[in-house]
Amino acid sequence: MKFVKNHQTAVFALGGLDEIGKNTYGIQFQDEIILVDAGIKFPEDELLGIDYVIPDYTYLVKNVDKIKGLFITHGHEDHIGGIPYLLRQINIPIYAGKLAIGLIKNKLEEHGLLRRAKLYEIQEEDVIKFRKTSVTFFRTTHSIPDSYGVVVKTPPGNIVHTGDFKFDFTPVGEPANLNKMAQIGQEGVLCLLSDSTNSEVPDFTMSERRVGESIQDIFRKEDGRIIFATFASNIHRLQQVVEASVEHGRKVAVFGRSMDSSITIGQELGYIKAPKDTFIDANQINRLPDNEVTILCTGSQGEPMAALSRIANGTHRQIQIIPGDTVVFSSSPIPGNTLSVSRIINQLFRAGANVISGSLNDIHTSGHGGQQEQKLMLRLMKPKYFMPIHGEYRMMKMHTKLAIDCQVEEKNTFIMDNGEVLALSENEASIAGKIPSGSVYVDGNGIGDIGNIVLRDRKILSEEGLVVVVVSINMKEFRIASGPDIISRGFVYMRESEDLINDAQGILSKHLNGMMERRTTQWSEIKNEITDVLAPFLYEKTKRRPMILPIIMEI
Amino acid sequence: MKFVKNHQTAVFALGGLDEIGKNTYGIQFQDEIILVDAGIKFPEDELLGIDYVIPDYTYLVKNVDKIKGLFITHGHEDHIGGIPYLLRQINIPIYAGKLAIGLIKNKLEEHGLLRRAKLYEIQEEDVIKFRKTSVTFFRTTHSIPDSYGVVVKTPPGNIVHTGDFKFDFTPVGEPANLNKMAQIGQEGVLCLLSDSTNSEVPDFTMSERRVGESIQDIFRKEDGRIIFATFASNIHRLQQVVEASVEHGRKVAVFGRSMDSSITIGQELGYIKAPKDTFIDANQINRLPDNEVTILCTGSQGEPMAALSRIANGTHRQIQIIPGDTVVFSSSPIPGNTLSVSRIINQLFRAGANVISGSLNDIHTSGHGGQQEQKLMLRLMKPKYFMPIHGEYRMMKMHTKLAIDCQVEEKNTFIMDNGEVLALSENEASIAGKIPSGSVYVDGNGIGDIGNIVLRDRKILSEEGLVVVVVSINMKEFRIASGPDIISRGFVYMRESEDLINDAQGILSKHLNGMMERRTTQWSEIKNEITDVLAPFLYEKTKRRPMILPIIMEI
Repeated sequence: MKFVKNHQTAVFALGGLDEIGKNTYGIQFQDEIILVDAGIKFPEDELLGIDYVIPDYTYLVKNVDKIKGLFITHGHEDHIGGIPYLLRQINIPIYAGKLAIGLIKNKLEEHGLLRRAKLYEIQEEDVIKFRKTSVTFFRTTHSIPDSYGVVVKTPPGNIVHTGDFKFDFTPVGEPANLNKMAQIGQEGVLCLLSDSTNSEVPDFTMSERRVGESIQDIFRKEDGRIIFATFASNIHRLQQVVEASVEHGRKVAVFGRSMDSSITIGQELGYIKAPKDTFIDANQINRLPDNEVTILCTGSQGEPMAALSRIANGTHRQIQIIPGDTVVFSSSPIPGNTLSVSRIINQLFRAGANVISGSLNDIHTSGHGGQQEQKLMLRLMKPKYFMPIHGEYRMMKMHTKLAIDCQVEEKNTFIMDNGEVLALSENEASIAGKIPSGSVYVDGNGIGDIGNIVLRDRKILSEEGLVVVVVSINMKEFRIASGPDIISRGFVYMRESEDLINDAQGILSKHLNGMMERRTTQWSEIKNEITDVLAPFLYEKTKRRPMILPIIMEI
Repeated sequence: MKFVKNHQTAVFALGGLDEIGKNTYGIQFQDEIILVDAGIKFPEDELLGIDYVIPDYTYLVKNVDKIKGLFITHGHEDHIGGIPYLLRQINIPIYAGKLAIGLIKNKLEEHGLLRRAKLYEIQEEDVIKFRKTSVTFFRTTHSIPDSYGVVVKTPPGNIVHTGDFKFDFTPVGEPANLNKMAQIGQEGVLCLLSDSTNSEVPDFTMSERRVGESIQDIFRKEDGRIIFATFASNIHRLQQVVEASVEHGRKVAVFGRSMDSSITIGQELGYIKAPKDTFIDANQINRLPDNEVTILCTGSQGEPMAALSRIANGTHRQIQIIPGDTVVFSSSPIPGNTLSVSRIINQLFRAGANVISGSLNDIHTSGHGGQQEQKLMLRLMKPKYFMPIHGEYRMMKMHTKLAIDCQVEEKNTFIMDNGEVLALSENEASIAGKIPSGSVYVDGNGIGDIGNIVLRDRKILSEEGLVVVVVSINMKEFRIASGPDIISRGFVYMRESEDLINDAQGILSKHLNGMMERRTTQWSEIKNEITDVLAPFLYEKTKRRPMILPIIMEI
């Protein structure tokens, strides 16, 4: 990083700004790099077939000897999901709170990476010291227990990374440590990196405790089975459901792999407390009266393979909807999932269930603070420089406006791109340069092997289908030995399109025979001819433009 | 329709219930069928490559001699988009209000069907009489001018179809005819078919006039260019933008094909009024100061090919965003479009524009009434039987609850499926049977030729890609003449996967040679062998399951 001077601290993101790749931040002073979070992004629909998106780790791999550690703010996938992919390239030490450590362990176990990983559990009061820098923490409130903000102390000044936060003054777990935040602000914050997710929301985010009251209301009122779907990682929410169940004489059956593992890990770490016989197996559900059953399951985002989706469409092995069932969506659908959630709600109503969903019923609350909370953070930290993180551009833009309202000077605010490097000294800050960044696609075993060409092909195939033309040519005798044969997939239903295919074959034969007569043996020429003849013919007949794949075999 | 008795009136929908195929309803008494609307549905993402969805018209085609006419409630695509496809099969007379007639003409012109179409423009006071039935109308308010409800008078009683409606007491165009509705109710309504879209919205829908005030606010405040994106069919909205432009000394440039044609048709029919020199060409924009320019464009739903999307991503030929521009989204994104709208807003902010979007700024209102308006309609019509239409199941369910609250007897409410037939006599109603129904996919020229097999193939191709294996076999000599060759698309990037492809080829060669030695010449056996060998090999290496397409050429 030649463009950063020796007395400057560099701050950068590989993911987390305008969403690309998701939450991976770096703070570097000379030869010491502190990483904060290593997240994953779930791809949007146009990334056909891609499983995850991770950031480009090139800079980290090249500078592995400088990296002091990866500090995790909390255990959500968009903050820890990239760890296996990062660790496969560089085995750096990882520091995280109790629950995040538990979740990371599970994840590394699955990837066969646990044995050699260097994991350190942190407490809020810990100070992790390196030669030139040190790291401390402050407890925040968010939709998962053990969420922390991170303070990186560097010679030019302290860099504060809030992690994801809201100010829940009546949380289910431990409250945010306002006093410590105020003290950090008092000591002086050179630059604040703060969560921008809800910067377009004017309100103060509802307390998790209020959701608890709504849960209690439902449990008081309903006397059929209660099927409760929520995010598995929202362990405080799970605890509230378990408590309500116990209070109202219901047993709890758990469905879905991630829900299972959350309940297990939540009990192990003491976040979920319940009398010994609270949890029951699937096969015990039908032995109990309906008003003694709670079903806790995954799928509140409409995920097609999750428990709730299968319950709704009638393909779940153990649970069928019966009239009187109440299904609770304790969630709000992220934008890409609105349609599938809607579809599931319709299916559940059709099957006779009553459905209680998110926004209308105070049965869900965001994990991110609105404008008032973002301003509270700004007032506590009183940063000289401000860099909005974690949000789309529009949200970072609005967050910057809030910072200016809270007396950060406009010229001291930086809306950055992933890869851009902010160079900070005590009295100066500027975007000094850029390191490699971008999205890396994970598809099956492949990391980064799927690029734009493959994606473009998938898009054409998905919308127009494919026509394969195969022809065997005897190149010595200038003679077609076999074919042309036409096979299609995703284009037209072959059995019902015999005429179309026969006509196309006829036209191609004529052209290919002509080429043979002219003694053309250039493969590329023959291939081009096939495409040039077939594409307009098919478009005229069908108004579709399938991918045409000419294959020539030489005999 | 043998299951409907001679003294009964049958009511059915081929589309419009729980969304499938969209708005196409029938009311039949003996040998007279009155059709209401013939809509189209824009496909959801999983219908890969499908352009539109229309309902199955089998019943209508079979009973064409009974159909008296198609009555159009208003000119939105989900109510008129199916007309060309229906008319190609049965050339029935069409009755519609002034604007809808204009839009239908355009549409039929494009499809080359205008010359032989039988179009009749209706006025609110018209009575269209047939031998046993007759049809009258009542004016409603909706997000497009000339919206009507339809009353079908049949011997057992009157059937009322509301069309899409809200009660806008201060509309921009003509108000709803409450008196006529009350009179229809007074005369007696046997069955009410009513718009369910906003049955989950407790509020009374905001007036279009209020949107006008917000538009005025923006025009008063901004002194850069105003780029205004909205639905082209919302001609009252367009008129308000044009008015505000004229008032504040701005000229209006229009972009997007549907916007162009709305402005033209709106002016022709007198809905859009403006001084002669109000509209300017694209090339005149840059000759005017920024505060004298309004750009009216399509793309408020984030449609990738629309004007706004190209303006945002910098590929529009004539308009580049400049700092000071204000972009107004006078719309609210339908669920499937949230992400693309969001992306465009981010791009616009990045380019330096200010963005004012729907919900936050009273700059858009729904065309559908909320619960209060649905109840007002129920109280005006006082129907004996009630059938919610136009909405997802959950909305029809909620609408039914409202009907019961308004004293329709629960046993007299019918949430139906597309194709189900409600048989009504004066004192009895029941779902009597079913006629053919379902979704028909339109893809290019093809209507109904794309089925589940093609869609399933497209899905696999889109997520996993394709591997073609070609081999030429000399069947007489039991010898491989050429190949096996492997070509892939959308699977891995071939140039970077030579080893994988070579290894696969090697394994296949070995197996195929073995088969030749065993003198296997069954094509299906050889094809199965190729798939059985290749699929697990590729999955082990890549954790992907591409479609495998074995092609055997006989020499």
